[in-house]
Amino acid sequence: MVRRTGRRPGNPDTRDAILATARTAFAEKGYDGASIRHIATGAGVDPALVHHYFGTKDKLFLAAMNAPLDPGELIPEVLAGDQDAIGERLVRFFLSIWDSPAGKAGVAMLRSAVSSEWTAKLFREFVVSQVLRRVRQLVPMPPAEAPMRVSLVASQLAGLAMARYVIKIEPLASASPEVLVAAIGPTIQRYVFGDLSGVWASPPPPDTAG
Amino acid sequence: MVRRTGRRPGNPDTRDAILATARTAFAEKGYDGASIRHIATGAGVDPALVHHYFGTKDKLFLAAMNAPLDPGELIPEVLAGDQDAIGERLVRFFLSIWDSPAGKAGVAMLRSAVSSEWTAKLFREFVVSQVLRRVRQLVPMPPAEAPMRVSLVASQLAGLAMARYVIKIEPLASASPEVLVAAIGPTIQRYVFGDLSGVWASPPPPDTAG
Repeated sequence: MVRRTGRRPGNPDTRDAILATARTAFAEKGYDGASIRHIATGAGVDPALVHHYFGTKDKLFLAAMNAPLDPGELIPEVLAGDQDAIGERLVRFFLSIWDSPAGKAGVAMLRSAVSSEWTAKLFREFVVSQVLRRVRQLVPMPPAEAPMRVSLVASQLAGLAMARYVIKIEPLASASPEVLVAAIGPTIQRYVFGDLSGVWASPPPPDTAG
Repeated sequence: MVRRTGRRPGNPDTRDAILATARTAFAEKGYDGASIRHIATGAGVDPALVHHYFGTKDKLFLAAMNAPLDPGELIPEVLAGDQDAIGERLVRFFLSIWDSPAGKAGVAMLRSAVSSEWTAKLFREFVVSQVLRRVRQLVPMPPAEAPMRVSLVASQLAGLAMARYVIKIEPLASASPEVLVAAIGPTIQRYVFGDLSGVWASPPPPDTAG
């Protein structure tokens, strides 16, 4: 059993205790509801120590998820440039990450996400706060449409990761990245900027995407 | 420990032993390589008993996967009719299954599929032999293109299941089926019948989809 109080700052278990408490907080309160102050209290340490170890709340979340990369650094690069090719760029970027050594950590994150309701909630908070929210902020979409558009993008990219890296359905699993950019890029482009008038024909559900 | 020999036909463990042996056979040898005769030998029973309990190899596979429905019965219905609306029909059908009580078994199958390499392989054999192969047989696609086209369909539908039922990304998770039919139907239609000339520009990989 892990003791949660009376740790010395140099105790190597302190870092793990903070990360475990952070995972609980992000899953139970969500990204917006979780605070470094509460996480520090839960782990029995001073908030200054959490800042010292991890920096910002975003960086703490990345560490808690064992994320191999920081979406906050990569997403602005991918989204900059020609908006007519944003779908192709997103697919090419997504595949370059998953085909790299970081892809192993991605599969591990996906396996963990699917293993229980609790881990799925934690993963959802991560994807929404670290990826989808940033895409919504950086891509000029009508605000009422943006939550549905980015969740559609997420559905196709999650399925690409599942089909290629987890279930490994051929010939998609062995296809070259450029084949998949040509196949799936237009799907993403339509979800981001295309005519989805049939979707807006029914009133959109309330924005709960955070 | 489960004894594999000397069972009486009426032994309730016999059924479980056959199913466990079948899972191993389907994962290790694939659908085509697994035979009822070998599975019976592995479980220490007569092949006639396997046929008596489960019927065909397809039905044995369904039982081994705890599949809530038989894709072999449902797929021909869904694929019959107007080919210009096949994308919408597939999405509507997919959502009607996952939104029904059978959806819980679907989530359980997906969780299990993702949990290890072995279960992923078993799930892949199931999806390819019970779903994708039938779609390829029933939908008039050029044979050289069909494997990539159906694996693209599988990627979007797997991602829809992940985003809506496992990770639960809003507003997609709470959207009405018809909203998602309007959003994702055209994606599936393009994957099945649309112009994917950019995909065929590079030579397609060898057909390994079974």
